[in-house]
Amino acid sequence: MPQPTPRMTLVLGGARSGKSAYAETLIEACPGPWLYLATAQAFDDEMVDRIAQHRARRPEAWRTRNVPLALPEAVAEAEGPVLVDCLTLWLTNLILAEADLEEATAQLVAACTRAPGPLVLVGNEVGLGIVPDNALARRFRDAAGRLHQRLAAEADRVVLTVAGLPLIVKPGASA
Amino acid sequence: MPQPTPRMTLVLGGARSGKSAYAETLIEACPGPWLYLATAQAFDDEMVDRIAQHRARRPEAWRTRNVPLALPEAVAEAEGPVLVDCLTLWLTNLILAEADLEEATAQLVAACTRAPGPLVLVGNEVGLGIVPDNALARRFRDAAGRLHQRLAAEADRVVLTVAGLPLIVKPGASA
Amino acid sequence: MPQPTPRMTLVLGGARSGKSAYAETLIEACPGPWLYLATAQAFDDEMVDRIAQHRARRPEAWRTRNVPLALPEAVAEAEGPVLVDCLTLWLTNLILAEADLEEATAQLVAACTRAPGPLVLVGNEVGLGIVPDNALARRFRDAAGRLHQRLAAEADRVVLTVAGLPLIVKPGASA
Repeated sequence: MPQPTPRMTLVLGGARSGKSAYAETLIEACPGPWLYLATAQAFDDEMVDRIAQHRARRPEAWRTRNVPLALPEAVAEAEGPVLVDCLTLWLTNLILAEADLEEATAQLVAACTRAPGPLVLVGNEVGLGIVPDNALARRFRDAAGRLHQRLAAEADRVVLTVAGLPLIVKPGASA
Repeated sequence: MPQPTPRMTLVLGGARSGKSAYAETLIEACPGPWLYLATAQAFDDEMVDRIAQHRARRPEAWRTRNVPLALPEAVAEAEGPVLVDCLTLWLTNLILAEADLEEATAQLVAACTRAPGPLVLVGNEVGLGIVPDNALARRFRDAAGRLHQRLAAEADRVVLTVAGLPLIVKPGASA
Repeated sequence: MPQPTPRMTLVLGGARSGKSAYAETLIEACPGPWLYLATAQAFDDEMVDRIAQHRARRPEAWRTRNVPLALPEAVAEAEGPVLVDCLTLWLTNLILAEADLEEATAQLVAACTRAPGPLVLVGNEVGLGIVPDNALARRFRDAAGRLHQRLAAEADRVVLTVAGLPLIVKPGASA
Protein backbone atom coordinates (compact mmCIF):
# COMPACT_ATOMS: atom_id res chain seq x y z
CA MET A 1 0.00 0.00 0.00
CA PRO A 2 2.39 2.72 -1.10
CA GLN A 3 -0.31 5.34 -1.82
CA PRO A 4 -2.23 7.23 0.85
CA THR A 5 -5.93 6.40 1.17
CA PRO A 6 -7.90 8.81 -1.06
CA ARG A 7 -11.08 10.68 -0.12
CA MET A 8 -13.39 7.92 -1.37
CA THR A 9 -12.64 4.29 -2.16
CA LEU A 10 -15.07 1.60 -3.33
CA VAL A 11 -13.95 -1.96 -2.52
CA LEU A 12 -15.92 -4.63 -4.37
CA GLY A 13 -15.32 -8.35 -4.15
CA GLY A 14 -16.90 -11.77 -4.08
CA ALA A 15 -17.75 -13.83 -1.04
CA ARG A 16 -14.67 -14.53 1.12
CA SER A 17 -12.46 -12.49 -1.19
CA GLY A 18 -10.92 -10.54 1.67
CA LYS A 19 -12.70 -7.27 0.86
CA SER A 20 -13.47 -6.28 4.48
CA ALA A 21 -9.96 -7.03 5.71
CA TYR A 22 -8.49 -5.08 2.80
CA ALA A 23 -10.83 -2.13 3.44
CA GLU A 24 -9.83 -2.09 7.11
CA THR A 25 -6.15 -1.78 6.17
CA LEU A 26 -7.01 1.31 4.10
CA ILE A 27 -8.69 2.99 7.06
CA GLU A 28 -6.07 1.89 9.58
CA ALA A 29 -3.42 3.53 7.40
CA CYS A 30 -5.05 6.87 8.36
CA PRO A 31 -4.80 8.64 11.73
CA GLY A 32 -7.72 7.52 13.98
CA PRO A 33 -10.20 7.37 15.55
CA TRP A 34 -11.90 5.16 12.97
CA LEU A 35 -15.65 4.80 12.53
CA TYR A 36 -17.18 1.54 11.42
CA LEU A 37 -20.66 1.90 9.95
CA ALA A 38 -22.10 -1.62 10.17
CA THR A 39 -25.19 -2.55 8.19
CA ALA A 40 -25.43 -6.22 9.19
CA GLN A 41 -28.47 -7.42 11.10
CA ALA A 42 -28.12 -10.68 12.97
CA PHE A 43 -31.20 -12.61 11.81
CA ASP A 44 -29.69 -16.06 12.24
CA ASP A 45 -26.74 -17.89 13.81
CA GLU A 46 -24.70 -17.85 10.62
CA MET A 47 -24.91 -14.06 10.55
CA VAL A 48 -24.17 -13.77 14.29
CA ASP A 49 -20.96 -15.72 13.62
CA ARG A 50 -19.95 -13.57 10.67
CA ILE A 51 -20.51 -10.34 12.60
CA ALA A 52 -18.50 -11.69 15.55
CA GLN A 53 -15.62 -12.71 13.26
CA HIS A 54 -15.52 -9.26 11.66
CA ARG A 55 -15.65 -7.52 15.03
CA ALA A 56 -12.93 -9.75 16.54
CA ARG A 57 -10.54 -8.72 13.78
CA ARG A 58 -10.86 -4.99 14.48
CA PRO A 59 -8.72 -3.41 17.21
CA GLU A 60 -10.25 -1.36 20.01
CA ALA A 61 -9.50 1.91 18.21
CA TRP A 62 -12.61 1.37 16.10
CA ARG A 63 -15.93 2.87 17.10
CA THR A 64 -18.90 0.95 15.68
CA ARG A 65 -22.29 2.34 14.76
CA ASN A 66 -25.06 0.02 13.58
CA VAL A 67 -27.01 1.52 10.70
CA PRO A 68 -29.06 -1.15 8.99
CA LEU A 69 -31.12 1.51 7.16
CA ALA A 70 -29.95 5.04 8.11
CA LEU A 71 -26.63 4.76 6.30
CA PRO A 72 -26.89 7.99 4.23
CA GLU A 73 -27.53 10.02 7.40
CA ALA A 74 -24.62 8.33 9.19
CA VAL A 75 -22.23 9.03 6.32
CA ALA A 76 -23.40 12.66 6.23
CA GLU A 77 -22.72 13.10 9.98
CA ALA A 78 -19.41 11.23 10.12
CA GLU A 79 -16.04 12.86 10.67
CA GLY A 80 -12.63 11.31 10.14
CA PRO A 81 -11.93 7.94 8.53
CA VAL A 82 -15.12 5.92 7.92
CA LEU A 83 -15.61 2.34 6.78
CA VAL A 84 -19.01 1.27 5.44
CA ASP A 85 -19.39 -2.53 5.60
CA CYS A 86 -21.36 -3.32 3.62
CA LEU A 87 -23.50 -1.87 0.87
CA THR A 88 -24.96 -5.26 0.03
CA LEU A 89 -26.56 -5.82 3.41
CA TRP A 90 -27.82 -2.25 3.42
CA LEU A 91 -29.60 -2.88 0.09
CA THR A 92 -30.97 -6.16 1.44
CA ASN A 93 -32.31 -4.35 4.52
CA LEU A 94 -33.92 -1.68 2.32
CA ILE A 95 -35.62 -4.32 0.16
CA LEU A 96 -36.90 -6.19 3.23
CA ALA A 97 -38.18 -2.88 4.64
CA GLU A 98 -39.86 -2.12 1.27
CA ALA A 99 -38.03 1.21 1.13
CA ASP A 100 -37.68 3.32 -2.02
CA LEU A 101 -34.38 2.05 -3.46
CA GLU A 102 -34.00 4.89 -5.97
CA GLU A 103 -34.35 7.54 -3.29
CA ALA A 104 -32.14 5.76 -0.76
CA THR A 105 -29.45 5.24 -3.40
CA ALA A 106 -29.56 8.91 -4.41
CA GLN A 107 -29.24 9.94 -0.74
CA LEU A 108 -26.25 7.70 -0.17
CA VAL A 109 -24.47 8.86 -3.32
CA ALA A 110 -25.06 12.50 -2.33
CA ALA A 111 -23.74 11.91 1.21
CA CYS A 112 -20.63 10.13 -0.12
CA THR A 113 -19.98 12.88 -2.64
CA ARG A 114 -19.96 15.48 0.14
CA ALA A 115 -18.10 13.42 2.76
CA PRO A 116 -14.68 14.82 3.71
CA GLY A 117 -13.22 11.28 3.84
CA PRO A 118 -11.29 9.14 3.94
CA LEU A 119 -14.38 7.07 3.23
CA VAL A 120 -14.13 3.41 2.25
CA LEU A 121 -17.24 1.52 1.10
CA VAL A 122 -17.39 -2.27 0.83
CA GLY A 123 -19.81 -4.10 -1.47
CA ASN A 124 -20.33 -7.65 -2.71
CA GLU A 125 -19.97 -8.13 -6.43
CA VAL A 126 -22.89 -10.48 -7.14
CA GLY A 127 -23.48 -10.08 -10.88
CA LEU A 128 -21.02 -12.56 -12.36
CA GLY A 129 -22.98 -15.79 -12.00
CA ILE A 130 -25.88 -17.32 -13.88
CA VAL A 131 -29.09 -15.20 -13.92
CA PRO A 132 -31.00 -16.15 -10.76
CA ASP A 133 -34.38 -17.91 -11.17
CA ASN A 134 -35.78 -15.81 -8.39
CA ALA A 135 -37.28 -12.41 -9.32
CA LEU A 136 -36.34 -10.88 -5.96
CA ALA A 137 -32.71 -11.97 -6.41
CA ARG A 138 -32.70 -10.40 -9.88
CA ARG A 139 -34.12 -7.17 -8.49
CA PHE A 140 -31.48 -7.15 -5.75
CA ARG A 141 -28.72 -7.87 -8.26
CA ASP A 142 -29.84 -5.00 -10.47
CA ALA A 143 -30.05 -2.59 -7.52
CA ALA A 144 -26.56 -3.59 -6.35
CA GLY A 145 -25.10 -3.14 -9.82
CA ARG A 146 -26.67 0.29 -10.24
CA LEU A 147 -25.51 1.44 -6.79
CA HIS A 148 -21.96 0.25 -7.43
CA GLN A 149 -21.85 2.06 -10.78
CA ARG A 150 -23.02 5.33 -9.26
CA LEU A 151 -20.58 5.12 -6.34
CA ALA A 152 -17.73 4.04 -8.64
CA ALA A 153 -18.31 7.14 -10.77
CA GLU A 154 -17.81 9.34 -7.68
CA ALA A 155 -15.00 7.31 -6.08
CA ASP A 156 -11.37 8.29 -6.39
CA ARG A 157 -10.31 4.65 -6.38
CA VAL A 158 -12.18 1.41 -7.14
CA VAL A 159 -10.75 -1.99 -6.26
CA LEU A 160 -11.94 -5.54 -6.92
CA THR A 161 -10.53 -7.99 -4.38
CA VAL A 162 -9.62 -11.46 -5.67
CA ALA A 163 -8.31 -14.05 -3.21
CA GLY A 164 -7.43 -11.30 -0.76
CA LEU A 165 -5.52 -9.24 -3.31
CA PRO A 166 -6.58 -5.87 -4.73
CA LEU A 167 -7.14 -5.61 -8.46
CA ILE A 168 -7.21 -1.89 -9.28
CA VAL A 169 -10.21 -0.96 -11.44
CA LYS A 170 -9.91 2.84 -11.07
CA PRO A 171 -6.45 3.98 -10.02
CA GLY A 172 -7.53 7.17 -8.34
CA ALA A 173 -5.72 10.22 -7.07
CA SER A 174 -4.57 10.38 -3.49
CA ALA A 175 -6.41 12.62 -0.99
CA MET B 1 -10.87 6.74 -23.85
CA PRO B 2 -7.61 7.99 -25.29
CA GLN B 3 -7.16 5.14 -27.80
CA PRO B 4 -9.19 4.78 -31.00
CA THR B 5 -11.64 1.86 -31.12
CA PRO B 6 -9.84 -1.13 -32.68
CA ARG B 7 -11.24 -3.45 -35.37
CA MET B 8 -12.74 -5.89 -32.86
CA THR B 9 -13.48 -5.43 -29.16
CA LEU B 10 -15.08 -7.93 -26.76
CA VAL B 11 -16.78 -6.33 -23.75
CA LEU B 12 -17.64 -8.80 -20.99
CA GLY B 13 -19.24 -7.94 -17.69
CA GLY B 14 -21.67 -9.01 -15.03
CA ALA B 15 -25.29 -8.00 -14.67
CA ARG B 16 -25.66 -4.19 -14.38
CA SER B 17 -21.94 -3.68 -14.73
CA GLY B 18 -22.37 -0.99 -17.39
CA LYS B 19 -21.14 -3.14 -20.26
CA SER B 20 -23.70 -1.94 -22.83
CA ALA B 21 -23.23 1.74 -22.01
CA TYR B 22 -19.45 1.32 -22.19
CA ALA B 23 -19.70 -0.52 -25.52
CA GLU B 24 -21.88 2.26 -26.93
CA THR B 25 -19.24 4.86 -26.08
CA LEU B 26 -16.70 2.83 -28.08
CA ILE B 27 -18.92 2.86 -31.16
CA GLU B 28 -19.98 6.48 -30.75
CA ALA B 29 -16.30 7.47 -30.75
CA CYS B 30 -16.26 6.37 -34.42
CA PRO B 31 -17.79 8.25 -37.38
CA GLY B 32 -21.40 7.05 -37.93
CA PRO B 33 -23.84 5.78 -38.96
CA TRP B 34 -23.82 3.14 -36.25
CA LEU B 35 -25.51 -0.24 -36.49
CA TYR B 36 -26.98 -1.92 -33.43
CA LEU B 37 -27.45 -5.67 -33.81
CA ALA B 38 -29.95 -6.55 -31.10
CA THR B 39 -30.46 -10.14 -30.04
CA ALA B 40 -33.03 -9.59 -27.27
CA GLN B 41 -36.49 -11.06 -27.64
CA ALA B 42 -39.21 -9.57 -25.48
CA PHE B 43 -40.77 -12.67 -23.89
CA ASP B 44 -41.97 -10.91 -20.74
CA ASP B 45 -42.51 -7.47 -19.21
CA GLU B 46 -39.13 -7.45 -17.48
CA MET B 47 -37.41 -7.89 -20.84
CA VAL B 48 -39.65 -5.31 -22.53
CA ASP B 49 -38.50 -2.83 -19.88
CA ARG B 50 -34.83 -3.68 -20.32
CA ILE B 51 -35.02 -3.34 -24.11
CA ALA B 52 -36.81 0.01 -23.78
CA GLN B 53 -34.19 1.30 -21.34
CA HIS B 54 -31.35 0.31 -23.67
CA ARG B 55 -33.09 1.87 -26.67
CA ALA B 56 -33.90 5.10 -24.81
CA ARG B 57 -30.21 5.59 -24.09
CA ARG B 58 -29.15 5.46 -27.73
CA PRO B 59 -29.36 8.61 -29.85
CA GLU B 60 -31.22 8.66 -33.17
CA ALA B 61 -28.00 8.13 -35.13
CA TRP B 62 -28.24 4.43 -34.37
CA ARG B 63 -29.93 2.05 -36.79
CA THR B 64 -31.23 -1.10 -35.08
CA ARG B 65 -31.59 -4.55 -36.58
CA ASN B 66 -33.17 -7.36 -34.59
CA VAL B 67 -31.31 -10.61 -35.08
CA PRO B 68 -32.33 -13.10 -32.38
CA LEU B 69 -30.74 -15.97 -34.35
CA ALA B 70 -29.21 -14.72 -37.63
CA LEU B 71 -26.38 -12.83 -35.96
CA PRO B 72 -23.49 -14.36 -37.97
CA GLU B 73 -25.18 -13.37 -41.25
CA ALA B 74 -25.86 -9.85 -39.95
CA VAL B 75 -22.23 -9.38 -38.87
CA ALA B 76 -21.06 -10.66 -42.26
CA GLU B 77 -23.27 -8.15 -44.12
CA ALA B 78 -22.62 -5.15 -41.89
CA GLU B 79 -20.60 -2.10 -42.87
CA GLY B 80 -19.25 0.61 -40.61
CA PRO B 81 -19.28 0.57 -36.81
CA VAL B 82 -21.33 -2.31 -35.40
CA LEU B 83 -22.42 -3.09 -31.85
CA VAL B 84 -23.62 -6.62 -31.00
CA ASP B 85 -25.69 -6.62 -27.80
CA CYS B 86 -25.58 -9.26 -26.64
CA LEU B 87 -23.93 -12.63 -27.18
CA THR B 88 -25.62 -14.08 -24.12
CA LEU B 89 -29.15 -13.62 -25.39
CA TRP B 90 -28.12 -14.91 -28.80
CA LEU B 91 -26.85 -18.13 -27.16
CA THR B 92 -30.05 -18.37 -25.13
CA ASN B 93 -32.12 -17.99 -28.30
CA LEU B 94 -30.05 -20.70 -30.04
CA ILE B 95 -30.54 -23.10 -27.13
CA LEU B 96 -34.30 -22.44 -27.04
CA ALA B 97 -34.44 -23.00 -30.82
CA GLU B 98 -32.44 -26.24 -30.38
CA ALA B 99 -29.87 -24.99 -32.89
CA ASP B 100 -26.39 -26.49 -33.33
CA LEU B 101 -24.30 -24.36 -30.95
CA GLU B 102 -20.94 -25.56 -32.29
CA GLU B 103 -21.84 -24.62 -35.84
CA ALA B 104 -23.44 -21.29 -34.92
CA THR B 105 -20.43 -20.37 -32.81
CA ALA B 106 -18.02 -21.23 -35.62
CA GLN B 107 -20.08 -19.10 -38.05
CA LEU B 108 -20.07 -16.12 -35.71
CA VAL B 109 -16.34 -16.36 -35.03
CA ALA B 110 -15.66 -16.57 -38.79
CA ALA B 111 -17.89 -13.55 -39.51
CA CYS B 112 -16.21 -11.51 -36.77
CA THR B 113 -12.74 -12.46 -37.99
CA ARG B 114 -13.57 -11.15 -41.47
CA ALA B 115 -15.55 -8.06 -40.40
CA PRO B 116 -13.90 -4.75 -41.37
CA GLY B 117 -14.92 -3.23 -38.03
CA PRO B 118 -15.03 -1.38 -35.78
CA LEU B 119 -17.00 -4.25 -34.26
CA VAL B 120 -17.87 -4.31 -30.56
CA LEU B 121 -19.44 -7.42 -29.01
CA VAL B 122 -21.07 -7.44 -25.58
CA GLY B 123 -21.45 -10.58 -23.47
CA ASN B 124 -22.45 -11.46 -19.91
CA GLU B 125 -19.76 -13.09 -17.83
CA VAL B 126 -21.77 -15.79 -16.04
CA GLY B 127 -19.13 -18.28 -14.91
CA LEU B 128 -18.00 -16.82 -11.59
CA GLY B 129 -20.74 -18.08 -9.29
CA ILE B 130 -21.50 -21.43 -7.72
CA VAL B 131 -22.05 -24.30 -10.20
CA PRO B 132 -25.76 -24.19 -11.10
CA ASP B 133 -27.94 -27.15 -10.04
CA ASN B 134 -29.69 -27.03 -13.35
CA ALA B 135 -28.16 -29.00 -16.25
CA LEU B 136 -29.45 -26.53 -18.86
CA ALA B 137 -27.86 -23.63 -16.97
CA ARG B 138 -24.55 -25.55 -16.87
CA ARG B 139 -24.77 -26.22 -20.60
CA PHE B 140 -25.46 -22.55 -21.27
CA ARG B 141 -22.60 -21.49 -19.01
CA ASP B 142 -20.19 -23.78 -20.83
CA ALA B 143 -21.34 -22.56 -24.24
CA ALA B 144 -20.94 -18.93 -23.17
CA GLY B 145 -17.46 -19.56 -21.80
CA ARG B 146 -16.34 -21.32 -24.97
CA LEU B 147 -17.76 -18.61 -27.22
CA HIS B 148 -16.09 -15.85 -25.19
CA GLN B 149 -12.74 -17.65 -25.33
CA ARG B 150 -12.91 -18.03 -29.10
CA LEU B 151 -13.93 -14.42 -29.67
CA ALA B 152 -11.35 -13.15 -27.16
CA ALA B 153 -8.62 -14.97 -29.11
CA GLU B 154 -9.62 -13.05 -32.28
CA ALA B 155 -10.37 -9.71 -30.62
CA ASP B 156 -7.89 -6.85 -30.62
CA ARG B 157 -9.08 -5.72 -27.22
CA VAL B 158 -10.95 -7.48 -24.39
CA VAL B 159 -12.48 -5.60 -21.49
CA LEU B 160 -14.24 -6.70 -18.31
CA THR B 161 -16.55 -4.01 -16.96
CA VAL B 162 -16.76 -3.70 -13.17
CA ALA B 163 -19.14 -1.13 -11.68
CA GLY B 164 -19.22 0.73 -14.99
CA LEU B 165 -15.44 0.88 -15.32
CA PRO B 166 -13.35 -1.00 -17.89
CA LEU B 167 -10.76 -3.45 -16.65
CA ILE B 168 -8.47 -4.19 -19.59
CA VAL B 169 -7.91 -7.92 -20.08
CA LYS B 170 -6.28 -7.72 -23.52
CA PRO B 171 -4.81 -4.32 -24.29
CA GLY B 172 -5.08 -4.57 -28.04
CA ALA B 173 -3.71 -2.58 -30.90
CA SER B 174 -5.65 0.33 -32.29
CA ALA B 175 -7.39 0.00 -35.68
CA MET C 1 4.40 -15.52 -21.68
CA PRO C 2 7.67 -13.60 -21.51
CA GLN C 3 8.41 -14.39 -17.82
CA PRO C 4 9.61 -17.76 -16.57
CA THR C 5 7.14 -19.72 -14.43
CA PRO C 6 7.77 -18.82 -10.76
CA ARG C 7 7.96 -21.27 -7.84
CA MET C 8 4.25 -21.05 -7.06
CA THR C 9 1.39 -19.76 -9.19
CA LEU C 10 -2.32 -19.69 -8.34
CA VAL C 11 -4.63 -19.64 -11.37
CA LEU C 12 -8.24 -18.75 -10.55
CA GLY C 13 -11.04 -18.44 -13.05
CA GLY C 14 -14.69 -19.01 -13.73
CA ALA C 15 -16.28 -21.95 -15.50
CA ARG C 16 -14.91 -22.36 -19.03
CA SER C 17 -12.56 -19.44 -18.60
CA GLY C 18 -9.57 -21.36 -19.92
CA LYS C 19 -7.84 -21.70 -16.54
CA SER C 20 -6.66 -25.31 -17.01
CA ALA C 21 -5.32 -24.72 -20.51
CA TYR C 22 -3.52 -21.59 -19.32
CA ALA C 23 -2.05 -23.43 -16.32
CA GLU C 24 -0.80 -26.22 -18.59
CA THR C 25 1.09 -23.69 -20.74
CA LEU C 26 2.88 -22.46 -17.59
CA ILE C 27 4.05 -25.97 -16.73
CA GLU C 28 4.92 -26.90 -20.31
CA ALA C 29 7.19 -23.85 -20.46
CA CYS C 30 9.40 -25.67 -17.90
CA PRO C 31 11.70 -28.65 -18.58
CA GLY C 32 9.76 -31.93 -17.99
CA PRO C 33 8.72 -34.46 -16.92
CA TRP C 34 5.50 -32.83 -15.77
CA LEU C 35 3.27 -34.17 -13.01
CA TYR C 36 -0.49 -33.69 -13.13
CA LEU C 37 -2.19 -34.04 -9.75
CA ALA C 38 -5.83 -34.67 -10.64
CA THR C 39 -8.53 -34.30 -8.02
CA ALA C 40 -11.57 -35.07 -10.20
CA GLN C 41 -13.69 -38.09 -9.43
CA ALA C 42 -15.93 -39.37 -12.21
CA PHE C 43 -19.29 -39.68 -10.48
CA ASP C 44 -21.38 -39.11 -13.60
CA ASP C 45 -21.17 -38.99 -17.40
CA GLU C 46 -20.76 -35.21 -17.49
CA MET C 47 -17.66 -35.51 -15.31
CA VAL C 48 -16.31 -38.46 -17.31
CA ASP C 49 -16.53 -36.26 -20.40
CA ARG C 50 -14.79 -33.33 -18.74
CA ILE C 51 -11.94 -35.50 -17.46
CA ALA C 52 -11.51 -37.07 -20.90
CA GLN C 53 -11.42 -33.63 -22.55
CA HIS C 54 -8.76 -32.39 -20.14
CA ARG C 55 -6.68 -35.55 -20.58
CA ALA C 56 -6.94 -35.46 -24.38
CA ARG C 57 -5.43 -31.98 -24.39
CA ARG C 58 -2.29 -33.01 -22.49
CA PRO C 59 0.63 -34.51 -24.42
CA GLU C 60 2.16 -37.84 -23.40
CA ALA C 61 4.96 -36.12 -21.47
CA TRP C 62 2.56 -35.67 -18.57
CA ARG C 63 2.38 -38.22 -15.76
CA THR C 64 -0.99 -38.22 -13.98
CA ARG C 65 -1.68 -39.08 -10.37
CA ASN C 66 -5.23 -39.18 -9.06
CA VAL C 67 -5.48 -37.64 -5.61
CA PRO C 68 -9.11 -36.92 -4.79
CA LEU C 69 -8.22 -36.45 -1.09
CA ALA C 70 -4.48 -36.94 -0.48
CA LEU C 71 -3.44 -33.78 -2.30
CA PRO C 72 -1.24 -32.30 0.48
CA GLU C 73 0.79 -35.52 0.68
CA ALA C 74 1.15 -35.65 -3.12
CA VAL C 75 2.35 -32.03 -3.28
CA ALA C 76 4.83 -32.74 -0.46
CA GLU C 77 6.27 -35.75 -2.32
CA ALA C 78 6.36 -34.22 -5.80
CA GLU C 79 9.51 -33.23 -7.66
CA GLY C 80 9.79 -31.06 -10.76
CA PRO C 81 6.95 -29.09 -12.35
CA VAL C 82 3.55 -29.91 -10.83
CA LEU C 83 0.05 -28.91 -11.87
CA VAL C 84 -2.81 -29.25 -9.37
CA ASP C 85 -6.18 -29.31 -11.16
CA CYS C 86 -8.22 -28.44 -9.30
CA LEU C 87 -8.59 -27.10 -5.77
CA THR C 88 -12.35 -26.82 -6.13
CA LEU C 89 -12.94 -30.52 -6.71
CA TRP C 90 -10.53 -31.35 -3.89
CA LEU C 91 -12.60 -29.20 -1.50
CA THR C 92 -15.78 -30.83 -2.79
CA ASN C 93 -14.30 -34.29 -2.18
CA LEU C 94 -13.28 -33.27 1.35
CA ILE C 95 -16.77 -31.99 2.13
CA LEU C 96 -18.38 -35.17 0.77
CA ALA C 97 -15.93 -37.24 2.85
CA GLU C 98 -16.78 -35.11 5.92
CA ALA C 99 -13.09 -34.32 6.41
CA ASP C 100 -11.76 -31.52 8.61
CA LEU C 101 -11.49 -28.63 6.13
CA GLU C 102 -9.41 -26.41 8.41
CA GLU C 103 -6.81 -29.11 8.94
CA ALA C 104 -6.71 -30.19 5.30
CA THR C 105 -6.36 -26.59 4.17
CA ALA C 106 -3.50 -25.97 6.61
CA GLN C 107 -1.74 -29.13 5.37
CA LEU C 108 -2.06 -28.10 1.75
CA VAL C 109 -0.83 -24.56 2.39
CA ALA C 110 2.18 -25.94 4.32
CA ALA C 111 3.01 -28.41 1.54
CA CYS C 112 2.79 -25.68 -1.11
CA THR C 113 4.95 -23.32 0.93
CA ARG C 114 7.71 -25.94 1.11
CA ALA C 115 7.39 -27.25 -2.47
CA PRO C 116 10.45 -26.58 -4.64
CA GLY C 117 8.22 -25.77 -7.61
CA PRO C 118 7.38 -24.82 -10.23
CA LEU C 119 3.95 -25.50 -8.75
CA VAL C 120 0.77 -24.29 -10.46
CA LEU C 121 -2.58 -24.60 -8.68
CA VAL C 122 -5.92 -24.18 -10.45
CA GLY C 123 -9.13 -23.17 -8.67
CA ASN C 124 -12.63 -22.08 -9.63
CA GLU C 125 -13.61 -18.61 -8.54
CA VAL C 126 -17.18 -19.19 -7.33
CA GLY C 127 -17.88 -16.20 -5.10
CA LEU C 128 -19.07 -13.57 -7.58
CA GLY C 129 -22.70 -14.61 -8.00
CA ILE C 130 -25.79 -14.20 -5.86
CA VAL C 131 -25.58 -15.79 -2.38
CA PRO C 132 -26.70 -19.42 -2.83
CA ASP C 133 -29.94 -20.50 -1.10
CA ASN C 134 -28.31 -23.76 -0.14
CA ALA C 135 -26.34 -23.85 3.15
CA LEU C 136 -23.92 -26.48 1.83
CA ALA C 137 -23.16 -24.32 -1.22
CA ARG C 138 -22.51 -21.35 1.09
CA ARG C 139 -20.18 -23.46 3.23
CA PHE C 140 -18.31 -24.65 0.14
CA ARG C 141 -18.07 -21.09 -1.20
CA ASP C 142 -16.63 -19.86 2.10
CA ALA C 143 -14.10 -22.70 2.24
CA ALA C 144 -13.00 -22.05 -1.34
CA GLY C 145 -12.58 -18.33 -0.68
CA ARG C 146 -10.53 -18.93 2.46
CA LEU C 147 -8.31 -21.50 0.74
CA HIS C 148 -7.69 -19.19 -2.23
CA GLN C 149 -6.77 -16.31 0.08
CA ARG C 150 -4.27 -18.41 2.00
CA LEU C 151 -2.67 -19.82 -1.14
CA ALA C 152 -2.64 -16.40 -2.82
CA ALA C 153 -0.71 -14.99 0.16
CA GLU C 154 2.01 -17.64 -0.37
CA ALA C 155 1.99 -17.61 -4.18
CA ASP C 156 4.55 -15.70 -6.20
CA ARG C 157 2.00 -14.99 -8.90
CA VAL C 158 -1.82 -14.97 -8.93
CA VAL C 159 -3.82 -14.85 -12.14
CA LEU C 160 -7.55 -14.58 -12.87
CA THR C 161 -8.43 -16.02 -16.27
CA VAL C 162 -11.17 -14.23 -18.22
CA ALA C 163 -12.24 -15.61 -21.60
CA GLY C 164 -8.98 -17.55 -21.84
CA LEU C 165 -6.81 -14.54 -21.06
CA PRO C 166 -4.76 -14.01 -17.90
CA LEU C 167 -5.55 -10.99 -15.75
CA ILE C 168 -2.59 -10.55 -13.40
CA VAL C 169 -3.71 -10.10 -9.78
CA LYS C 170 -0.27 -10.54 -8.16
CA PRO C 171 2.60 -9.92 -10.54
CA GLY C 172 5.12 -12.13 -8.76
CA ALA C 173 8.83 -12.60 -9.05
CA SER C 174 10.25 -15.18 -11.39
CA ALA C 175 11.74 -18.43 -9.99
